[in-house]
Amino acid sequence: MRKCYFDHVATNPLRPEVLDAMMPYFKENFGNPLSVYDLGMQARDAIEGARAEVAALINAKPSTIVFTSSGAEANNFALRGVALAKQNQGKHIIVSKVEHHSILNAARFLEKSGFVVTYLPVDQHGMVDPEVLKASITRETVVISLALASSEIGTIEPVREVAALARERNIVLHTDAVAAVGNIPVDVKELGVDLMSMAAHQFYGPKGAGALYIREGLRVVPLIYGGIQEGGRRAGTENVPAIVGMGKAAVFAAEELQDRIEHCRSLRDRIIQGTLRLPNVYLTGHPEKRLPHHASFVVEFIEGEAMLLMLSMKGIYAASGSACSSKALKSSPVLLSLGVPTALAQGSIVFSLGKENTVEDVEYFLAVFVEVIQKLRMMSPFAKGWGEGGEGEKCYTG
Amino acid sequence: MRKCYFDHVATNPLRPEVLDAMMPYFKENFGNPLSVYDLGMQARDAIEGARAEVAALINAKPSTIVFTSSGAEANNFALRGVALAKQNQGKHIIVSKVEHHSILNAARFLEKSGFVVTYLPVDQHGMVDPEVLKASITRETVVISLALASSEIGTIEPVREVAALARERNIVLHTDAVAAVGNIPVDVKELGVDLMSMAAHQFYGPKGAGALYIREGLRVVPLIYGGIQEGGRRAGTENVPAIVGMGKAAVFAAEELQDRIEHCRSLRDRIIQGTLRLPNVYLTGHPEKRLPHHASFVVEFIEGEAMLLMLSMKGIYAASGSACSSKALKSSPVLLSLGVPTALAQGSIVFSLGKENTVEDVEYFLAVFVEVIQKLRMMSPFAKGWGEGGEGEKCYTG
Repeated sequence: MRKCYFDHVATNPLRPEVLDAMMPYFKENFGNPLSVYDLGMQARDAIEGARAEVAALINAKPSTIVFTSSGAEANNFALRGVALAKQNQGKHIIVSKVEHHSILNAARFLEKSGFVVTYLPVDQHGMVDPEVLKASITRETVVISLALASSEIGTIEPVREVAALARERNIVLHTDAVAAVGNIPVDVKELGVDLMSMAAHQFYGPKGAGALYIREGLRVVPLIYGGIQEGGRRAGTENVPAIVGMGKAAVFAAEELQDRIEHCRSLRDRIIQGTLRLPNVYLTGHPEKRLPHHASFVVEFIEGEAMLLMLSMKGIYAASGSACSSKALKSSPVLLSLGVPTALAQGSIVFSLGKENTVEDVEYFLAVFVEVIQKLRMMSPFAKGWGEGGEGEKCYTG
Repeated sequence: MRKCYFDHVATNPLRPEVLDAMMPYFKENFGNPLSVYDLGMQARDAIEGARAEVAALINAKPSTIVFTSSGAEANNFALRGVALAKQNQGKHIIVSKVEHHSILNAARFLEKSGFVVTYLPVDQHGMVDPEVLKASITRETVVISLALASSEIGTIEPVREVAALARERNIVLHTDAVAAVGNIPVDVKELGVDLMSMAAHQFYGPKGAGALYIREGLRVVPLIYGGIQEGGRRAGTENVPAIVGMGKAAVFAAEELQDRIEHCRSLRDRIIQGTLRLPNVYLTGHPEKRLPHHASFVVEFIEGEAMLLMLSMKGIYAASGSACSSKALKSSPVLLSLGVPTALAQGSIVFSLGKENTVEDVEYFLAVFVEVIQKLRMMSPFAKGWGEGGEGEKCYTG
């Protein structure tokens, strides 16, 4: 059976060359980077090499990169670290309603600690309006967190415009770029952000390695205290092989970015066109300003979970709702924030492509998906009256 | 040249069988454990298998194990998580002065958030006196953190007695067992602790995997918020290969514990006996109640850094001060808390053994160490009057 891994927002396969680069650090070069002898120096040099590689991918200086264990850790570190560092200036935070759980739940934690959080509404495409954001800024606002792109609906947010707004008002701007880095060009200087989160396994690197870009001179209270690793900003013995892997993956991401974008975009467009021919299926997220590898839909009368299981029996792997809450079986708050009705939000399905996917994969998928939807709708008590001939809407519009 | 890796408290080499067990999760089994399809289920099953393996090593139920990225993360999670969960009952915390930086610095962070912290003094062997601890408990005390063993001086603390004290008073007890697990028998039920931190790379597992044992029913506020991973207690895409490696390493640690203890203890005793023959060299930490693989000293008139560099030129790898602050080049606060004078504390050196070390390694080391000390003392302006014939003290006694 053909295998079509269309769930790159959940995780990417590890690139074999990246694993090869990691291997010596599982074997002979096993030293602790803080040790003064050669084994330690090798590990330290390897980390500093990876830091330069990750920095280069986003046009940053190496010293601005702090390695973490994941994108979620980077997000918690950023939001809570800046909020604590700036709390004497004010205790108001702005995050969008389409942020990842690691931002939304960190914001809720801060609310319990006395911060006031504005959860910024989005339009029907999941897009933040910079004017709405501007109106929500108060004298107390110290930090704004806005994802560069949503892993769930693919929408690319106007981070650059928001960064300009924030800078004028001396407010710190964090962007969660976990879903974006490796999939679209990301340049921290051009974006003008103060902090940015990344995760290696989103660009063919290993799990267990993430990073936070911290603009030079910006103080962020650590999340993990302890030794002097990462310049005292993030303690814990460094996961040397994973960090090395992140660096190597960053090099490939930089080299291949345009090819990956073109390859994935053409497959994605094929999926979107093919899928929207089906009746009562709607695209979620922005029709144009979206991640090039990302196609997300809501399918009326069907539950996402059922689609995932039937597709997986045919070798097709996808996600429903956010990658991190597939198993939570709750309506996605992100979809609800777009105005998608609760029942329809249950029919969420997300296809995210990678460099290893082919046109043949997509053709196979489209043939299977029609069947899956037909079968499931035949079983659905809600699908009565659904006709075979109808043309699908171009996009769900609230 | 012979290579003697005597720095197992810094990190262990990864056991090849453990790496073998990890490999499929870098390759075909790369799925995200939260994904509903088979690739996700394989990853999830692998994590649950590892959870059972780690739990078995410390006689705990699998559901009480939360995976983290490091021992430092586990320590921060424990201390801060309990302090926040219990802050309505009181805001007093007790930690010993010989704790790892990740506890001491997390405690300092909590001080800034309005908690009162008692840094418990220790005796000349680095041992906490349960009676002194008892006297420091107030009505406000909500959590005590006491390392099971110190990585810097090897002393094994009376955690069981302290646990009994804490339990009677309904105070939560955390133990940092990072330096202990895999080196001495550790049984959470017998110890009676509420929380316990571990790190895989301390028992021939990979870097990037740690764990926190949390007694059933105990509420701990998360350190990393986000998705529903680890039962909502620790978010972030799981580092599946590293977790699998931690489980496998735990299996070996359980099987081989007695052999490792006997093997390392006899080498350690040989190092201690041989080294204490040298004049003006003192054992640090407890002479008997110490980790079986751990020999630590202060050497008068010499700096630790200089010894480390000269030893490493002879292929011998050791540490000075704590493993996580070798490069900080400050007098170790742990040694100062034992009453070691500042100048003498600069001459700290720590040898920590492993299963791959041999009697021949130790004999080679002892021959080299005499020469290194002689050479360095000849260069030292402070070593005048130091005679060749003097017998070393058995132990530094303050």
